[in-house]
Amino acid sequence: MISLDKAIGIVRQSVSALKGEEQVALVESLNRVLAHDVVSDINMPPFRKTAVDGYACRAADLDNPLSVIEVIAAGAAPQKNIVQGTCSKIMTGAPIPNGADCVIPVEDTEILSDGTIRFTGDKPKSNICELGEDIKIGESPLSKGTLIKPQHIAIMAALGCHSPIVSVRPKVSILPTGDELVEPTEIPQGSKIRNSNGHQLIAQVASAGAIPIYHGIVADTEEATEKAIAKALTESDVVVLTGGVSMGDFDYVPRIMERLGVKILFDSIAVQPGKPTTFGVAGNKLIFGLPGNPVSSFIQFELLVKPALLMMMGCNTPYAPIYRLPLANDYTRKRAERLGLFPVIVNANGEVEPLEYHGSAHIFALARAHGIASIALGIKEIKKGELIDVRSI
Amino acid sequence: MISLDKAIGIVRQSVSALKGEEQVALVESLNRVLAHDVVSDINMPPFRKTAVDGYACRAADLDNPLSVIEVIAAGAAPQKNIVQGTCSKIMTGAPIPNGADCVIPVEDTEILSDGTIRFTGDKPKSNICELGEDIKIGESPLSKGTLIKPQHIAIMAALGCHSPIVSVRPKVSILPTGDELVEPTEIPQGSKIRNSNGHQLIAQVASAGAIPIYHGIVADTEEATEKAIAKALTESDVVVLTGGVSMGDFDYVPRIMERLGVKILFDSIAVQPGKPTTFGVAGNKLIFGLPGNPVSSFIQFELLVKPALLMMMGCNTPYAPIYRLPLANDYTRKRAERLGLFPVIVNANGEVEPLEYHGSAHIFALARAHGIASIALGIKEIKKGELIDVRSI
Repeated sequence: MISLDKAIGIVRQSVSALKGEEQVALVESLNRVLAHDVVSDINMPPFRKTAVDGYACRAADLDNPLSVIEVIAAGAAPQKNIVQGTCSKIMTGAPIPNGADCVIPVEDTEILSDGTIRFTGDKPKSNICELGEDIKIGESPLSKGTLIKPQHIAIMAALGCHSPIVSVRPKVSILPTGDELVEPTEIPQGSKIRNSNGHQLIAQVASAGAIPIYHGIVADTEEATEKAIAKALTESDVVVLTGGVSMGDFDYVPRIMERLGVKILFDSIAVQPGKPTTFGVAGNKLIFGLPGNPVSSFIQFELLVKPALLMMMGCNTPYAPIYRLPLANDYTRKRAERLGLFPVIVNANGEVEPLEYHGSAHIFALARAHGIASIALGIKEIKKGELIDVRSI
Repeated sequence: MISLDKAIGIVRQSVSALKGEEQVALVESLNRVLAHDVVSDINMPPFRKTAVDGYACRAADLDNPLSVIEVIAAGAAPQKNIVQGTCSKIMTGAPIPNGADCVIPVEDTEILSDGTIRFTGDKPKSNICELGEDIKIGESPLSKGTLIKPQHIAIMAALGCHSPIVSVRPKVSILPTGDELVEPTEIPQGSKIRNSNGHQLIAQVASAGAIPIYHGIVADTEEATEKAIAKALTESDVVVLTGGVSMGDFDYVPRIMERLGVKILFDSIAVQPGKPTTFGVAGNKLIFGLPGNPVSSFIQFELLVKPALLMMMGCNTPYAPIYRLPLANDYTRKRAERLGLFPVIVNANGEVEPLEYHGSAHIFALARAHGIASIALGIKEIKKGELIDVRSI
């Protein structure tokens, strides 16, 4: 049994970025990972421009009324120079005319009866954006490895990167194992239960930006399991099993994995839920054996598999941010030999409230959860008001 | 000029959920909103089962060795009853045999030379999940209005909801306005800039789970603008314009909106960036006029438009969670007549660090941002260590 940090470290050291990239349309790049730095082909702003609607003028002239000599629209070019006692009406984003050193906002002015305008504000600010002050030609505001969100789409659009090159997405085979499982379309009889993990994993893989390949339920025989894993290893970059990785007699998956040339790097983590989590490698392929309980499977995917998938895409921010937030009430537990994880909501005061939670089979506890909180190995109690680590889910 | 809270309230009161729903495959329901409660057709657990791999037995018998009378696999039915001095080896998830009142974990046992097993642990826990302890037939763990994430897919799978009914997605027309704009495929000349807002909005609409309809750049004439808005109002549920909503001479959009029967409900918010944000309604259609600067447009979409889209889908959690986190350094600003919003990262200590930020045209500031922090109207300073509100982006 190793610590969660150690398990995360082992996975990180075992991952290599996939080779291969593809060029996609700007909008299709959402949630993909940039394969190259995006380099600016222009200065931004590309010219000296106004940040406000107002009047471009000389700050030294503001004590007296100013004659309006021109109106400069966004997208237009100024025709006249500003000289003493004059100004040009100017729209947000339009180029600053020569001679002007500030723009007074339209709301800080009044129009006098003779058509001149007067500054009614206090101290003038320049309200001028200088050429290249945000970015210069050749600079790279978006690095290779960026996971593309809407704000990055705007940056690429601004820089002319209209068909970004992104890394290829890993293929992930999903193999739920266990004779107790039936698919959601069936009504479980006797001691059967429905397969929830397999479908949850499809959704988790897709949410992580990778390609899920669903195998269907694998029968609880050594032959069927070995055949399914062998096939998955040929067609995918990552194999995720659930169930069959615990200490029971019928849980022969670790044995099969070794037979298929999979080097097992750990088979147990000091974490609750999720202790019987197995991880191995076969060449550059990764194999995760996740526990059969759906909360364990969910959490271990988020902690271990999702970062691995992001790293395979070259993502430079593979780990979810952790927020340190105050606990709303005392939290205690009886045993502390594993790091503990439990579902919580963040209330309107920004405090963390643990949800009712019966253990790792209790998927309904996740229905309303905002996140998963953690309590360190060795710690049995966290007091109200103390900070606790929370991962958003 | 109204407060941001008031603006959010006005939008909320103006939205009604769209009529219409559709049935989709389980995996396709990811990021959609449930149109009906999901009701359980089974008890969970559906039978009394073990939470661990181990030996089902009677707690009263644990001082003495126990004979193993049966092996019960997950998915199998117990054939024998537990009586004094006996136990059944049992796999996680398997049904508890009659007569047993606890399961001792396999790691808390040893096998004696005569084949009997002995409990080596301290105090035994029951390790039994009772029938229906997580959910009972007819209960509804997932309500109408749930935004479906992977953990909800697991719940639906468990309950047999294999083709969930979800609400229809709003259609959102995106109309970037302004003669200064060229598309990302072009190199901007003279006083032109590339259209970044339009593409950012496509991605934001898609990320919000709605359907973006991109109109292309709308020319800066009253006729073109009126025609584009009129068309958008007939084909979409929501119209989002950027640019053309400020106080400049060429900014006639509010005038056109009134002419098209759009009732303007506000045209200015005490927030920075994003002051010149317009909102109106035409029947049950919503029209947002967002500022032309891309940071303003991005933030106002997240604050106002995205919650509106989620509410149109009937989502019961339309507002992004806000985390209250300590500031890493003092933050000050010169003017405080608006609520201030600025991009930040959350550092490894969980503290909030403002990023270099030149103002609302400075989209590159969002490249590395984890979130948007806010400082209230009237407040000029927040001290290091004080808590500040942060929205994840």
